[in-house]
Amino acid sequence: MSDNSASAANAEAGRPHTIRMAAGDNVAIVANEGGLAAGTVLEDGLVLTERVPQGHKVALAPIAAGAPVVRYGATIGTASEPIAAGRWVHERLLRMPSARSLQGLPAATRKAAPLPPLDGHTFQGFRNADGSVGTRNILAITTTVQCVAGVVEHAVERIRRELLPRYPNVDAVVGLEHGYGCGVAIDAPDALIPIRTLRNISRNPNFGGEILVVSLGCEKLQPERLLPPGSFAIQDQRHAPGEEGLDVVRLQDEAHVGFTSMVDSILARATVHLERLNARRRETVPASALVVGVQCGGSDAFSGATANPAVGVCSDLLVRAGATVMFSETTEVRDGIDQLTARAATPEVADALVREMAWYDAYLGRGGADRSANTTPGNKQGGLANIVEKAMGSIVKSGSAPIAGVLSPGERLRDRGLTSGLVYAATPASDFVCGTLQLAAGMNLHVFTTGRGTPYGLAEVPVVKVATTSGLARRWHDLMDLNAGTIADGTATIEETGRALFGLLLEVASGRRTCAERLALHNALVLFNPAPVT
Amino acid sequence: MSDNSASAANAEAGRPHTIRMAAGDNVAIVANEGGLAAGTVLEDGLVLTERVPQGHKVALAPIAAGAPVVRYGATIGTASEPIAAGRWVHERLLRMPSARSLQGLPAATRKAAPLPPLDGHTFQGFRNADGSVGTRNILAITTTVQCVAGVVEHAVERIRRELLPRYPNVDAVVGLEHGYGCGVAIDAPDALIPIRTLRNISRNPNFGGEILVVSLGCEKLQPERLLPPGSFAIQDQRHAPGEEGLDVVRLQDEAHVGFTSMVDSILARATVHLERLNARRRETVPASALVVGVQCGGSDAFSGATANPAVGVCSDLLVRAGATVMFSETTEVRDGIDQLTARAATPEVADALVREMAWYDAYLGRGGADRSANTTPGNKQGGLANIVEKAMGSIVKSGSAPIAGVLSPGERLRDRGLTSGLVYAATPASDFVCGTLQLAAGMNLHVFTTGRGTPYGLAEVPVVKVATTSGLARRWHDLMDLNAGTIADGTATIEETGRALFGLLLEVASGRRTCAERLALHNALVLFNPAPVT
Repeated sequence: MSDNSASAANAEAGRPHTIRMAAGDNVAIVANEGGLAAGTVLEDGLVLTERVPQGHKVALAPIAAGAPVVRYGATIGTASEPIAAGRWVHERLLRMPSARSLQGLPAATRKAAPLPPLDGHTFQGFRNADGSVGTRNILAITTTVQCVAGVVEHAVERIRRELLPRYPNVDAVVGLEHGYGCGVAIDAPDALIPIRTLRNISRNPNFGGEILVVSLGCEKLQPERLLPPGSFAIQDQRHAPGEEGLDVVRLQDEAHVGFTSMVDSILARATVHLERLNARRRETVPASALVVGVQCGGSDAFSGATANPAVGVCSDLLVRAGATVMFSETTEVRDGIDQLTARAATPEVADALVREMAWYDAYLGRGGADRSANTTPGNKQGGLANIVEKAMGSIVKSGSAPIAGVLSPGERLRDRGLTSGLVYAATPASDFVCGTLQLAAGMNLHVFTTGRGTPYGLAEVPVVKVATTSGLARRWHDLMDLNAGTIADGTATIEETGRALFGLLLEVASGRRTCAERLALHNALVLFNPAPVT
Repeated sequence: MSDNSASAANAEAGRPHTIRMAAGDNVAIVANEGGLAAGTVLEDGLVLTERVPQGHKVALAPIAAGAPVVRYGATIGTASEPIAAGRWVHERLLRMPSARSLQGLPAATRKAAPLPPLDGHTFQGFRNADGSVGTRNILAITTTVQCVAGVVEHAVERIRRELLPRYPNVDAVVGLEHGYGCGVAIDAPDALIPIRTLRNISRNPNFGGEILVVSLGCEKLQPERLLPPGSFAIQDQRHAPGEEGLDVVRLQDEAHVGFTSMVDSILARATVHLERLNARRRETVPASALVVGVQCGGSDAFSGATANPAVGVCSDLLVRAGATVMFSETTEVRDGIDQLTARAATPEVADALVREMAWYDAYLGRGGADRSANTTPGNKQGGLANIVEKAMGSIVKSGSAPIAGVLSPGERLRDRGLTSGLVYAATPASDFVCGTLQLAAGMNLHVFTTGRGTPYGLAEVPVVKVATTSGLARRWHDLMDLNAGTIADGTATIEETGRALFGLLLEVASGRRTCAERLALHNALVLFNPAPVT
């Protein structure tokens, strides 16, 4: 059995290997591929009374009926019947605790010593006028409404084929397609979420402040509503003399005669932006310019034992280097809200955390659901009994830094004055929705851990995928950027893996291509729209 | 001034031309491009007191403050001040009536003479085992979750390039990509809507009963939940001996080593389905096999005066020929609910109509909106004062047949025993959401009218686009399949245009390509998910 940071045993060598996350835990998970058979003797002499699959929990001591089952030092449930030591602690043996009340939580009570600064780390990035830095140099075409998507796709294809070869410093062109913009209750209270999400995605640092909008003309989400004056000027549009305001191609403009003239208009405008983007060069910038969004998807019990703790180590290194790190996924932190409010830098940050949780509780409640709707069949097969256990394993991605700020869904870090430190960016846990909202917040690098495996990628920022097991890393050799399974194997520590990830992030930020980039794997933007469609 | 069916004056020739929809109307709309100037003398001697833009309303008689403003024989509002004859009846002069109560509506009261059968019309279609008929022969790849979209896109591209040339009778391959499948409250009451929508889209007649599913593995929407046994057998999977059940490629299957093996698996399975699809041939089928979904988008005041009434004529012809016609867009018929319940074939159908309206009222109310959230800036610029006026112009698409049945969002016509007649398929009015739900219902042909213009298209079924004005048809010459603007011009009647549309639909159903098909313009599927994401 190894503790969180130990690496003595080696599951790859076939020896029984279990992982306990904290000293007081009364369960550990089986690390060995294929699981462990009944009768197996663990390192400390404990004998398994039945077969335990990989990633699933074994009772380290007898647990009385009604007694807490403890992992990550937290109660992930109570035993529904007496559980003997050595038994498989299956989800059916656990009663899930009810959601923690949002009243009376500790606020900014954890007074840890500040993390020491980490100097001297740099990467090669594209500086923007507003102080942000791009990790890629991409022409993005903002769309106001799904109606224009078909035309924009043709324009993007032609830009890729006809124009990009002439602008070698531009990495890519991407159409920011989405299902919003019309047929929606645009004045409903919650409509501000999808609108600001789209607005802020178009201002992502990887687009260099160049904003080209394709609008239909009659849609509800008019370009001026999507990007009012001031929302784009901040990124310095560097207008040519005589050029003013937002650059919009409206398909319904009378000047357009037929399809080709629409595509030609987009190409003509794209050229102006490509010229400026092409003049940019990578330069040495401090690691503090990184804005890293972390996320997990397709989680298993190893997510919280290998990849996520390694991301936590990396997160601390990034924060020490002055970078910004966002963690998210409201339903996956809800059960650890007391940890988060305690880690809040100020009581105001704690209040904001509670506000986001309360909003989401109410949102789920309106739809007849609660945070327990989060877990998936794959989570459970992978050993995660319930959302409490999943949450504990998810939160470790945030490392140990104080929480410096909170973003509501679709908000932008810079608009809230957040340019360093650990930030809770409130988002649903859905991979694509979370990624879309972190793009809006201004991330220039995305870290995604996966246990069951997902070929996730984004066209807008590089996605670094971290496997929780060596088995996955081996099978998905060209889809996983880093193997954190070595932690379960006992061949690397969490600390070592976190440092390796930190180094990899600096390389990827400097231009090294990720697996998803090499394979051109892109998931769609999926907006969070809690307001009605009409 | 011309009545609904008259065509005496000719606006193209420059003479003043207005259109009144019903005999009792006290407003008419200006048909002339560019509008009509103050002082213009209309056909009946009325003098305009101010400039009235094209598509906007002119008062035909003095209207007292508080008196009803009547168009389509219906009160679209009351005058907010006295309005002189010849004045522009701008939206600011109209107070919108409150939503009609859903209590005490007439139920199946309209006892019109049955429409006479229309025999002898046929088209060339692909017969399916369940009795449905395809208008195209398409390989569809169903996806359970957005996670697989990147891989599926590569597979689709390779199938298009490498396989389709070997299967000349197959028209296309399409990946049914969407933002659902995980990170959603899948057990919430309203989750049944997106789930059955995806299920039923994969059973669309244009896919020939061939269902190939790409699943990640750990997602909430497992293939067996998306397509339980029985849901696909009905379309006759025609399994080869030894082949059983649903055909699923799971990316997380241990057999997959790397990205290419995933794509190869999809191609291998695709080949089996392509072989069977390629063996199909078009044959002569009666027009009764058509399942036409009608929709309007980017509407202006002409939508309800030219294109939509022509669609109404066509709808009656289709119903007379034994075909199925769906009209939809709940917020655009809500204000005419009394007309619809009166036209219901039975009191049960009237009840179902009221049930759908009440559900949508509650859905909008939960999000702090109501049916007035429907209208767009383009609608208003185009002359539509409010949702009541828009609704009256939208409902005319349904023609005059009794309403034979009602579908809830995402339901399938055949599952409800609806194989002919006029059906109200309840959907939001959002173009892409409505189209997606009509695909699920089983449409094999889509009619889309547009006033302001939209380049709408679907990859799954042909979309026939009808322009409301000659101006739009001229400018968007390669995007509009039919010009109903000739009705406003006075060069064709509504009846003639409706008959022309009917003929065009039979040709398109037989294989003639639409504008959107020729240009390969496709909008994304956008699911209606009233349940929460997690």
